[in-house]
Amino acid sequence: MTSPQPTRRRRAGSSDRPEQLRAPYIQRKLGTFSVLSEEGLSLIEANADTILQETGMEFTGDPEILEIFKAAGCDVKDTRVHFEKGFCRKTIQATAPKLFMQNARNPANTVQLGGDATVLCPSWGPPFVHDLDKGRRYASYSDFISLVKLHQTIPWLHHSGGVVCEPVDLPANKRHLDMLYGHIRYSDRAFMGAFIGAERAGHAIDMARIVFGADYVANNPVLYCVSNTNAPLVLDSHMSGALKTYARANQPVACTPWVLTGAMSPTTVAGTLAQVLAEATACLSLVQLVNPGAPCLMGSFASTMSMQSGAPTFGTPEAGLMVLAAGQLARRLGVPLHTVGTLSASKLPDAQAEQEAAWGLLMSMFAGANLINHATGWLEGGLVTSFEKTMIDADLCGKVGRFFDGIDLSENAQAMSAIAATGPGQHYLGSDHTRLNFMSALFRPLTPDNNSFEQWQAEGSKDAATRANALWKKQLENYQDPGLDPAIDEELKAYMTRVKSQQPDMNYF
Amino acid sequence: MTSPQPTRRRRAGSSDRPEQLRAPYIQRKLGTFSVLSEEGLSLIEANADTILQETGMEFTGDPEILEIFKAAGCDVKDTRVHFEKGFCRKTIQATAPKLFMQNARNPANTVQLGGDATVLCPSWGPPFVHDLDKGRRYASYSDFISLVKLHQTIPWLHHSGGVVCEPVDLPANKRHLDMLYGHIRYSDRAFMGAFIGAERAGHAIDMARIVFGADYVANNPVLYCVSNTNAPLVLDSHMSGALKTYARANQPVACTPWVLTGAMSPTTVAGTLAQVLAEATACLSLVQLVNPGAPCLMGSFASTMSMQSGAPTFGTPEAGLMVLAAGQLARRLGVPLHTVGTLSASKLPDAQAEQEAAWGLLMSMFAGANLINHATGWLEGGLVTSFEKTMIDADLCGKVGRFFDGIDLSENAQAMSAIAATGPGQHYLGSDHTRLNFMSALFRPLTPDNNSFEQWQAEGSKDAATRANALWKKQLENYQDPGLDPAIDEELKAYMTRVKSQQPDMNYF
Repeated sequence: MTSPQPTRRRRAGSSDRPEQLRAPYIQRKLGTFSVLSEEGLSLIEANADTILQETGMEFTGDPEILEIFKAAGCDVKDTRVHFEKGFCRKTIQATAPKLFMQNARNPANTVQLGGDATVLCPSWGPPFVHDLDKGRRYASYSDFISLVKLHQTIPWLHHSGGVVCEPVDLPANKRHLDMLYGHIRYSDRAFMGAFIGAERAGHAIDMARIVFGADYVANNPVLYCVSNTNAPLVLDSHMSGALKTYARANQPVACTPWVLTGAMSPTTVAGTLAQVLAEATACLSLVQLVNPGAPCLMGSFASTMSMQSGAPTFGTPEAGLMVLAAGQLARRLGVPLHTVGTLSASKLPDAQAEQEAAWGLLMSMFAGANLINHATGWLEGGLVTSFEKTMIDADLCGKVGRFFDGIDLSENAQAMSAIAATGPGQHYLGSDHTRLNFMSALFRPLTPDNNSFEQWQAEGSKDAATRANALWKKQLENYQDPGLDPAIDEELKAYMTRVKSQQPDMNYF
Repeated sequence: MTSPQPTRRRRAGSSDRPEQLRAPYIQRKLGTFSVLSEEGLSLIEANADTILQETGMEFTGDPEILEIFKAAGCDVKDTRVHFEKGFCRKTIQATAPKLFMQNARNPANTVQLGGDATVLCPSWGPPFVHDLDKGRRYASYSDFISLVKLHQTIPWLHHSGGVVCEPVDLPANKRHLDMLYGHIRYSDRAFMGAFIGAERAGHAIDMARIVFGADYVANNPVLYCVSNTNAPLVLDSHMSGALKTYARANQPVACTPWVLTGAMSPTTVAGTLAQVLAEATACLSLVQLVNPGAPCLMGSFASTMSMQSGAPTFGTPEAGLMVLAAGQLARRLGVPLHTVGTLSASKLPDAQAEQEAAWGLLMSMFAGANLINHATGWLEGGLVTSFEKTMIDADLCGKVGRFFDGIDLSENAQAMSAIAATGPGQHYLGSDHTRLNFMSALFRPLTPDNNSFEQWQAEGSKDAATRANALWKKQLENYQDPGLDPAIDEELKAYMTRVKSQQPDMNYF
């Protein structure tokens, strides 16, 4: 395990700006923030144990799982599994790794999952995209590729993600192949696998083998799977199929109960935490029973709900408390933490969107998250990926990276001779120290306008979204193709053609 | 010192909403976040000591201060004072109180300054106001009164503040009287004094005596003064005059170096922290020398600067690091921490404004700030108070209050019987537990739209600022006059008439 090596690249098309630091991931030099005492954590853990023992969890449509748990000594009735207290925790702690790497085809972009590393991923899952030119619309594969390219240009993201939008112009049962190809072809960062069902997970592994070689994939994580429960307390065969496939292939699985408090979990934070921990540890123990030592993460995606309308709400105090508590629980369990980032229910990249976005990303960072999904672009509770919000959130990604780098206490940073030389009532604008440090001392986001009102007015009185609109188009124009070995490209295309020919197009999953 | 007693009031004009919790201040149940180790903190303190000894600080236009420091054994040459290492810290720690109350005329609104309390204050100082109806314009006294009333309606603010906007339609040398009157008449919360010069500070104390009685004011803080240095390392007579007047009257002074890194302090975080600590401790020691035991706070207002344009920038990683370090330094010093909140350089209540606002307020909260100035409304780096942003930021104030209340671990909140009764694959929407808790379990902000896209569209496709525009007008319509004893009102008016008659109107300070 090596430290990330930041490389300085010129940001595409930015002759008026200094070099942007491009690091493979954030190496946090600051600590984490606690919201529960040891007693509080033990209480939540005991409650999760009680839930797993007394209520148990349903594993539907996948008899093999029931056999696996039965063989491990669990109490299985029909599709319901009851776990002895402490069983799941013990099973996980016996074999799950605390830290592992997910390898990118460009080794400089390989990410660490665990420890003090945080990996920021773009938006995942939206069937719609939004930009100020064309408005809100169903996403297409062309949008998908544009987003992959845009993300590749953003120095403060670390991962190409997965379903950066859902390309609904492609057949539902085959588009995962095109998405995987899009990541491999247009990005040289790590990317996610297909999450739904064992067959598609297998396709992702096949394609990864073409890129990395089968031997390499057998021994090194190169994909990433998020496995969501159907809360409360159900794992269905779509999710369990992918979970087993990735676990057997030594590829990381983030076991992530997704809940809306009040609908899919109790309306209280403490109740939700116990249920979420029960679901996550049951699934993580399954990963370890399927393949002891397989890489896995505890996922936290506990959202709140408007009790007036039932609509999901984001950037809320309760969601903050839940992700911070989840961080503490994951560290006690000894597995990396997967969470979510700049979520918002807003329909536009407006004040609501960024108040909620900043809240969500900061809470996940203070929680010590190791991978943060949806760190850019999410709107409408996940129905939309916004091109403009992607750029505005990217600034936030850059800011948290710089913030968690902590305070430089070098002699240069202490600046004692500059203070002595400047003296009372003078200014530092012309000091040698300022001239030596000004290119690197302060982080420079891309979307804010800090100019005077008069200058801002002269430049068209543009709000942040309007500026971001110009910015993402400029970034896309300056996208640099990382290239792909033509032999690999051909083999991937041939593989996709073969797989696609084996079944008719379908417009459902 | 008693715990704050939250009182439930119906929010004005909100028959469709549950009661809003109105607490006199936030009592933080969560901890603080550290960005410096003990070694790092000692280094910054040692550097501040070196600056105070070797460079010293200028106290201009106020010979009495030089005599005060001379009498205390400091090395005074012309207007420059050099301090022995440790002198300022020792002087402060000998007599400064760790915690005190600022009393409001409605005792239910009295605030605690220090300990785990956080008091949120509105915007301070802007000469302009902005709303979506009338745009950006010079502020008037009518705007000032509207803002005082609006703030009074917001349950998540705790203090009426001071110059919520600068009423430039009133004579510059007299408007402080009208502003003080506006707070006393239209709000029943604590308010700030006049900060510029001894004479105006005296007027604030006179008016406070009319409201509270002279004996009460002599023994109880009822005002609040922010004293800014002219960084680097200068305190001028405008500020020192007010500082001395409030200190002698036992009224709190927040000694607050305001810096733009790179212009008024070194461009690095560590250098800025040492300079700021030097300035703050020099001024705090002055407060304690003037009146040992006088209430005081260490202030932190370290902003960054665009190194391209020299414009102030907000919501930056470096500003976050500086306020968090300041919190650690203030706790080691043993005085409460004064900081700043939802600052932004944006010209509009847009995505930039709220990304920066959320960053700033959260950092100050994690720093353990005891009073946060500018917790609502600030735009354009402090040139504008925005009516719409006031409402959007107010939600953020409510959210941090709820967040820092921590996680309820009561049996009800654990919800174990609800989880057992609901069971796998079911939902909690109809559960008794949800019905019993849904009115209070989840915080409800006022400005977000969480509805479906279709419903949002049917309601006019309004962004957050547009919704906030309707909201602040509704809040103002439903403003409830707290009333004021007519005898006190008459006496205040007579006092103002007398003071105003003693000098001609002037349009400069």
